[in-house]
Amino acid sequence: MSELLVTGGQVLRPDLTVERADVLVSQDSGDIVAVDDPGTLDGDDELDASDGLVIPGLVNAHTHVAMTLLRGLADDKPLDAWLQEDVWPVEAELTADDIRAGAELGLVEMIRSGTTALSDMYFEVEEIADAVDQAGMRAVLGFTAVTVGKDDEAARSDLEESLDVARKLDGAADGRVRTTFQPHSLTTVGEEYLREFVPQALEDDLSIHLHANETRDEVTPIVDEHGQRPLAYADNIGLLDGDTYVAHGVHVDDSEIDLLAETGTGVAHCPASNMKLASGMAPVQDLLDAGVTVGIGTDGAASNNDLDMFDEMRDAAMIGKLAADDASAVDAGTVVEMATANGAALLGFDSGRIETGANADLAVIDLDAPHLTPAHDLVSHLAYAVHGSDVRHTVCDGEVLMRDRTVEVFDEQAVRERASEHAASLVERAGD
Amino acid sequence: MSELLVTGGQVLRPDLTVERADVLVSQDSGDIVAVDDPGTLDGDDELDASDGLVIPGLVNAHTHVAMTLLRGLADDKPLDAWLQEDVWPVEAELTADDIRAGAELGLVEMIRSGTTALSDMYFEVEEIADAVDQAGMRAVLGFTAVTVGKDDEAARSDLEESLDVARKLDGAADGRVRTTFQPHSLTTVGEEYLREFVPQALEDDLSIHLHANETRDEVTPIVDEHGQRPLAYADNIGLLDGDTYVAHGVHVDDSEIDLLAETGTGVAHCPASNMKLASGMAPVQDLLDAGVTVGIGTDGAASNNDLDMFDEMRDAAMIGKLAADDASAVDAGTVVEMATANGAALLGFDSGRIETGANADLAVIDLDAPHLTPAHDLVSHLAYAVHGSDVRHTVCDGEVLMRDRTVEVFDEQAVRERASEHAASLVERAGD
Repeated sequence: MSELLVTGGQVLRPDLTVERADVLVSQDSGDIVAVDDPGTLDGDDELDASDGLVIPGLVNAHTHVAMTLLRGLADDKPLDAWLQEDVWPVEAELTADDIRAGAELGLVEMIRSGTTALSDMYFEVEEIADAVDQAGMRAVLGFTAVTVGKDDEAARSDLEESLDVARKLDGAADGRVRTTFQPHSLTTVGEEYLREFVPQALEDDLSIHLHANETRDEVTPIVDEHGQRPLAYADNIGLLDGDTYVAHGVHVDDSEIDLLAETGTGVAHCPASNMKLASGMAPVQDLLDAGVTVGIGTDGAASNNDLDMFDEMRDAAMIGKLAADDASAVDAGTVVEMATANGAALLGFDSGRIETGANADLAVIDLDAPHLTPAHDLVSHLAYAVHGSDVRHTVCDGEVLMRDRTVEVFDEQAVRERASEHAASLVERAGD
Repeated sequence: MSELLVTGGQVLRPDLTVERADVLVSQDSGDIVAVDDPGTLDGDDELDASDGLVIPGLVNAHTHVAMTLLRGLADDKPLDAWLQEDVWPVEAELTADDIRAGAELGLVEMIRSGTTALSDMYFEVEEIADAVDQAGMRAVLGFTAVTVGKDDEAARSDLEESLDVARKLDGAADGRVRTTFQPHSLTTVGEEYLREFVPQALEDDLSIHLHANETRDEVTPIVDEHGQRPLAYADNIGLLDGDTYVAHGVHVDDSEIDLLAETGTGVAHCPASNMKLASGMAPVQDLLDAGVTVGIGTDGAASNNDLDMFDEMRDAAMIGKLAADDASAVDAGTVVEMATANGAALLGFDSGRIETGANADLAVIDLDAPHLTPAHDLVSHLAYAVHGSDVRHTVCDGEVLMRDRTVEVFDEQAVRERASEHAASLVERAGD
């Protein structure tokens, strides 16, 4: 039995207090086996957390990890033009090898910035699952089905593939991969297909992950066509459920917030993407007050442009206050919970807290930095001042993914070079 | 004659193109003396910019640098309560030594994140000027006068001190310090005092820096009392001028934007502070379209909570798009110009561009990182993906302030320890 001791630091506990403690994790079970006073525990291996803060590994609740290849390729455009003029033409050229290269780059970036779990929407999902397996991280994966602009055969094929991938890859990477059925959104998958395939997903107990209410342009057509708000329409189809979470949820009215709360449907809030695409401000404090589980996601790197969850916590606090017109809204502790425990709840992992019995998914923040001085309040620092570059070690499932800022699960330089080559080739092929 | 060669990197030029070039700076004149093809220049000393991007040193157009001591002390409160319940009681206890310790910490943080110039508003300004001198940076400093809640003698004393400090410290630190006359804001300095002291400042050719239109609560009382919008009132007093810049400018209407443009008054935009205090969204694209010079500031660390101008560029782009309801507003190139050339113009320094004859104020960004891969567009990276922690070297006035991530002008560890001690003592004294 191999045990790893994270020693010498302070620890963020589930109630958001901070105490000096050591954390012992089992590399066999992948669980935290003890959190106790400094010097009282022993392990076979140690991680030095001196001058550090041990926090739960962050949970990126909505991303498209392979889109790192498109980072900086097209900025400063609204969602619709950005997708149609830039993203989709390039994505049409993506091969499985490209996606593998982009996914590995994104996973390295996440490990470096203390993220241990992600929820991804994309295609060539087996490549992404393999990359997650090698990364040692946890992920909820799925194949994203779109039916608009496709003939019936192609539309059905997409939805069948989304079901098949969800069935097949669930439990991959020694159980660190879970899956979701993924209709892309309420406007990009036709009603007849939703009515046919959603019940099949529910029958198989598959979780569901879709985009919803991201922009005003996604709301109006549904109100026009179906005579009801998008989430009422989604509920009518059976999409809202305790195992469903929607990405974005920006333009939701009070009745839709109530529907999310009543059905137990979660929200993956993507503040940076919503700002960068000028999509709008999600009413995060209202969602939380109604009892909705809200996690935080970076969205893809093309609309962010990084995968740093510390940026995202800060953004969530900032835009949450503006949306509520109240500086006390979406406070520091709230965004830390959103990025840890809430995200884990959305994804269905027993992670997101430093506690005996929980998954041993954690990161150690190096507090020895001018921008983290003085140390009046470490929860405030996590929300407003820590950057991904302050992460010293990252651990998932009891295994060390990064030690002393060196990524151990990938050859980082090779990953970066391969991604750069694939990105250059992709742009050439797309004629951009 | 001593010359420093910044060699092996790419260089951001004033037109926002990027080219492979070496940059030669004179340590005697403090100017850039040549920007030329790689391998064609020689210096007495070299800075390695391989895998790096040479950019102008960033200009923090509005801060209260010593407030690093209050970082994380009081979050998630609106401006008025935050000032009255938290900030002012603590600031009442601040000694000159506290301010020196806080200023040094803030300057170290800025040097580490590539900032070479700042515009500061505070008190005990001689301590701040000394710290800036030691830091080797450029700064525009001043003593901030408040008259509300004071008797006439104390009020006059504040304004006299603001004039005296501006006269006395101008040209300090071998000319790297400039000064401004600083009435705190239009609501915290009484009209009779503005009418008496502003003409004295103008007569002495002093520049002016004040807070204006930060929150709605600053607009309504002025409209009620004076029957005109705040900036019309300010113009009536003679405050708006080509050598004046206002911090914030959030709640400005079209007529006020026109007034700023007509008078040549600049704006120091503080996006993070405006979000964190839920003050609102400045109409930055409208200001720029009207021809107003808009720089970017971090504001104090207590409302941010760091002094990283890369965060601030990203925030400016993000909130600028939301304010304009247009994802093409406040684009990547625009925020880079705001944080460099525009900021330098506000502060009155011949910096903010990598060009022969300009001040040798620059930073070298390390591009060798997963979050900066691939390299489709380096200007996009500067706006959306680079963090302060990516800065490898910082140079100001031809002198190396940080080399290979080691700050050379301060003992960083000692500065951090001293600031921590002063912060702890301050909180104890304030009984917080």
